[in-house]
Amino acid sequence: MQKNLNTLIITGDHIQEIIQHIGIDSIMDQLIEESYKAFVNFDAEDSLMTARSGFNYQEPREGLVEWMPIRKISDEEVLIKVVGYHPQNPEAFKLPTILSSVSTYDTKTGHLKALIDGVLPTSLRTGAISAIASKLLGNSKSSHLGLIGCGAQSVTQLHAISRVFPLKKVFYYDSDASAVQSFPSRVEMLNLDCELISTDIEMILSESDIISTATSIGIGEGPLFEHRKTKDHLHINAIGSDFPGKFELPLEFLKQSYVCPDWLDQATIEGECQQLALEDIGENLSDCLKGADKLNHLKDKLTVFDSTGIALQDLVAANVFLKHAAQLNLGHNVIIENPSIDEKNPYAFLKRLKES
Amino acid sequence: MQKNLNTLIITGDHIQEIIQHIGIDSIMDQLIEESYKAFVNFDAEDSLMTARSGFNYQEPREGLVEWMPIRKISDEEVLIKVVGYHPQNPEAFKLPTILSSVSTYDTKTGHLKALIDGVLPTSLRTGAISAIASKLLGNSKSSHLGLIGCGAQSVTQLHAISRVFPLKKVFYYDSDASAVQSFPSRVEMLNLDCELISTDIEMILSESDIISTATSIGIGEGPLFEHRKTKDHLHINAIGSDFPGKFELPLEFLKQSYVCPDWLDQATIEGECQQLALEDIGENLSDCLKGADKLNHLKDKLTVFDSTGIALQDLVAANVFLKHAAQLNLGHNVIIENPSIDEKNPYAFLKRLKES
Repeated sequence: MQKNLNTLIITGDHIQEIIQHIGIDSIMDQLIEESYKAFVNFDAEDSLMTARSGFNYQEPREGLVEWMPIRKISDEEVLIKVVGYHPQNPEAFKLPTILSSVSTYDTKTGHLKALIDGVLPTSLRTGAISAIASKLLGNSKSSHLGLIGCGAQSVTQLHAISRVFPLKKVFYYDSDASAVQSFPSRVEMLNLDCELISTDIEMILSESDIISTATSIGIGEGPLFEHRKTKDHLHINAIGSDFPGKFELPLEFLKQSYVCPDWLDQATIEGECQQLALEDIGENLSDCLKGADKLNHLKDKLTVFDSTGIALQDLVAANVFLKHAAQLNLGHNVIIENPSIDEKNPYAFLKRLKES
Repeated sequence: MQKNLNTLIITGDHIQEIIQHIGIDSIMDQLIEESYKAFVNFDAEDSLMTARSGFNYQEPREGLVEWMPIRKISDEEVLIKVVGYHPQNPEAFKLPTILSSVSTYDTKTGHLKALIDGVLPTSLRTGAISAIASKLLGNSKSSHLGLIGCGAQSVTQLHAISRVFPLKKVFYYDSDASAVQSFPSRVEMLNLDCELISTDIEMILSESDIISTATSIGIGEGPLFEHRKTKDHLHINAIGSDFPGKFELPLEFLKQSYVCPDWLDQATIEGECQQLALEDIGENLSDCLKGADKLNHLKDKLTVFDSTGIALQDLVAANVFLKHAAQLNLGHNVIIENPSIDEKNPYAFLKRLKES
């Protein structure tokens, strides 16, 4: 019998419906837990990734379209996220800077199994991984969070980190005054019991235990700030650096810090690690998590998580949402790939027409 | 106003409906014409391609999943075809060996504009490009076509070449007897006025003016035959070679032939050109077409088109089918990417819920 070629489409609306049903805190907790498991159990022999590649350009708008593939051997699956980064989207089109979709393929047949919205899941999984890195490398008593860049990513950074630390104060800054102004109303629904303080980068650096930087700083325009006095301990999640020549943190800070990349192979191409020699870079997040016991001394020091974003995270997020979609019976089933009624005859459908 | 994020989905059924409406000969003629224009006008500054890349494996089934991207600057578009090649598909699952889908992205925003069945279009565009190469390099009086490999691709090879040459005899061979047996009934609906002759490779080589090889020969198992006596003129479209270590033609034949790759950068990695030194390889098809006047002497000689398949062909095919889909008002519109009602707040939908 011919194998079924249904493709399950999970739209942004379905993702929202899942979150409404499960609850936003619960979804974030699940993403943190599943991402943690995926990284601490990471096996490079089972999860094959190629560093992402893509097209980048200045016309018609500054942007890029790139693809992030992973093959999970034990799942008999390939996942590809295609992601667009277009920093003019909010102003020009009222669209998020980052648009993406995720597709999964069966390695038995090559069949496109599912196509899933990547916009909200990407934002969530990027928050989740910062929570994991902050828990691993940040001070145990952290209660002050700094946010440099108050766009879409800052909301999920705050949310995720609030799930693993009892935050008391949140300092926030954006070079765009309207983003600063709207920030409190945008995070209201997180129901956090903490003080929101609009401020400047200097104060964020001096007051924070943990900082997430998530800006659209231009290529060659980094760093976001000159190195300044901080607490003795400070953990920074550097989120915005995701392109050759784009980075957020000053070299001096990186040099004084333990820098943990999500994936060295990619971080040296487009992360903060571009600025560093290999000997100045710590272990990958997966290895740091495997050897977490040995890293406790870092909690009193300066640390950086260089978060470029990898397909392993998208695989985790896709699986979390696919599981809930199945339970809630959500999604459109569409047969996209033409199976042909005769696998050796692309024109078989015409023959059948003639006969009928 | 927020830009619309509709994704147009064109399924295999829509592709079939278009073909039924337009007619199979007319669709093939359009693909030949549009592919010809795309190659003869090819501008490497405007059509950026990266050689395809992917995962290949022997488990759970022999196969590969690979991605073929192209950025057409003047169209403000990126197209990515994701293609699976799983030679056990017909026997194990009654599915075509090649499954694929094509997605297109707007380079203004990164938006996924369309997702299109790639199965039938790939088969058609692969036929179309053989017709173009055969017309360019094959003998003007060609009337005898040989087909080595009688799977799905052989049907569109025969169809396409029959559109540009008045074929009188078609010699066909496959190592799989059932494919040989079913071949005549599979091509019946092409209504060709020519004799179909089931035979062996030796006779195909000695009798044909043009040959298309489209086999699933294994990696390292080529060539399909030892070099034998042919006519003084013979043009071969080598279709099956599309993987490192996979090739169909004997080196001796290649060495005596003018070898035109569809795209040198890819053909030297996975085409017949793997077997050749750079100085033994002719110009890319696009350059051959641009300088066709100077190649007339080749029509009396041995020539090879090394057809690995490139994203430029998929762009042509996508545009042909999208044009017809628009005219016939076919396709599903789905909003896959979550646009968020506030582009700076992934959770804005929750807020709205709360307010309502």
